Amino acid sequence: MPHVTACDCGCSPYIPLPSRSIMSRPLSEAARTKMLGAAQEIIVADGLDACTVDEVARRSGVAKTTIYRHFKNGDELVIAAMECFKTDVDTPDTGSLAGDLRAMVEQFVATLEPAVSRRLFVSMLHRALDHPDFEQAFRRSREAEYGPLRRVLQRAIARGEVDPEIDVPLAMQFLQGPFMALQLLRPDAITIDDRLDQMIELSCRALAPQPVPL
Amino acid sequence: MPHVTACDCGCSPYIPLPSRSIMSRPLSEAARTKMLGAAQEIIVADGLDACTVDEVARRSGVAKTTIYRHFKNGDELVIAAMECFKTDVDTPDTGSLAGDLRAMVEQFVATLEPAVSRRLFVSMLHRALDHPDFEQAFRRSREAEYGPLRRVLQRAIARGEVDPEIDVPLAMQFLQGPFMALQLLRPDAITIDDRLDQMIELSCRALAPQPVPL
Repeated sequence: MPHVTACDCGCSPYIPLPSRSIMSRPLSEAARTKMLGAAQEIIVADGLDACTVDEVARRSGVAKTTIYRHFKNGDELVIAAMECFKTDVDTPDTGSLAGDLRAMVEQFVATLEPAVSRRLFVSMLHRALDHPDFEQAFRRSREAEYGPLRRVLQRAIARGEVDPEIDVPLAMQFLQGPFMALQLLRPDAITIDDRLDQMIELSCRALAPQPVPL
Repeated sequence: MPHVTACDCGCSPYIPLPSRSIMSRPLSEAARTKMLGAAQEIIVADGLDACTVDEVARRSGVAKTTIYRHFKNGDELVIAAMECFKTDVDTPDTGSLAGDLRAMVEQFVATLEPAVSRRLFVSMLHRALDHPDFEQAFRRSREAEYGPLRRVLQRAIARGEVDPEIDVPLAMQFLQGPFMALQLLRPDAITIDDRLDQMIELSCRALAPQPVPL
């Protein structure tokens, strides 16, 4: 199992360190915190493409050789910095699928300003177009987010709120769709409002158990 | 009403020409075709950001002053070029909402290779982040695409397939969500397969008329 270091910003790091990291000199947490902080500042101020190893080294004062001991390349550094924008998403348990979905959106909106999350998401999609390594790291990062949604869905199936015949991965993708449309296409991004509640109601209807044919 | 010129590539142009266009010298269709063709080549080869007025002038041989008689700025030129990638979407009429939605996706996939449409969509979202004029033009362009979906939904309501109480704009946004998730997040982009049919089935369930409470 690869060695994984924790960053001290409340994020859940799951970017394995490169095998080079198993060296005589221990990796410095202080240096890691500095680089990730610098990377986040650069991303917010100037965007994802500005967040290069050179620029992080310049701004953080951490040597490039040290950066490369923590991260295989600039893509992994960027992904780790993006992860630090998030806090761990708790799996809500409100007693209903609609309530749980709403609580997840509330957590999401409370953690990251919707305009910032739209910018980060679009920037990551854009960078993934031409950077296969980044695309894979982005995909792994998204998959790690699926845990709470999967648990919420499985509990809803157990309660009889969701069709037990449903394809769970497909249902998870389906549930994310309208939320993604809100995030990407609404001028004011996501807000906790009637519109969101109606979207959630439609999603719950879609997944409800099907009547048994007579 | 603004004057609108047609381009000869089968697209449906709805980018109004700037008022400057009402000048003594008529706008040349041949020049317009050249610039839009050059713009499309640049977008496919080098991406959206490379598609500047300077570069289109260089590649098409059309003078910048002429370009600016057709388009207010680079953003409008890019949007018009993007429009030319599409053909008009017909409003299908298969007799069912699921059939109509599937036919619309089939048209979409047949018109534009999924990987290309993903690249164009992501690039437009990305450019819209920092270019408010482009963001507005992009939004107008998307709204123009809503016509067929609105007609399909309204016919489904008339047939009794869709809840007559539904908020139609919200339902339209809801329907686009899972499709957008497929387009943006699946490694192989959109394909006409079982997965798509299941997504469409879930969407149709969501919008179905609600049972009257006893």
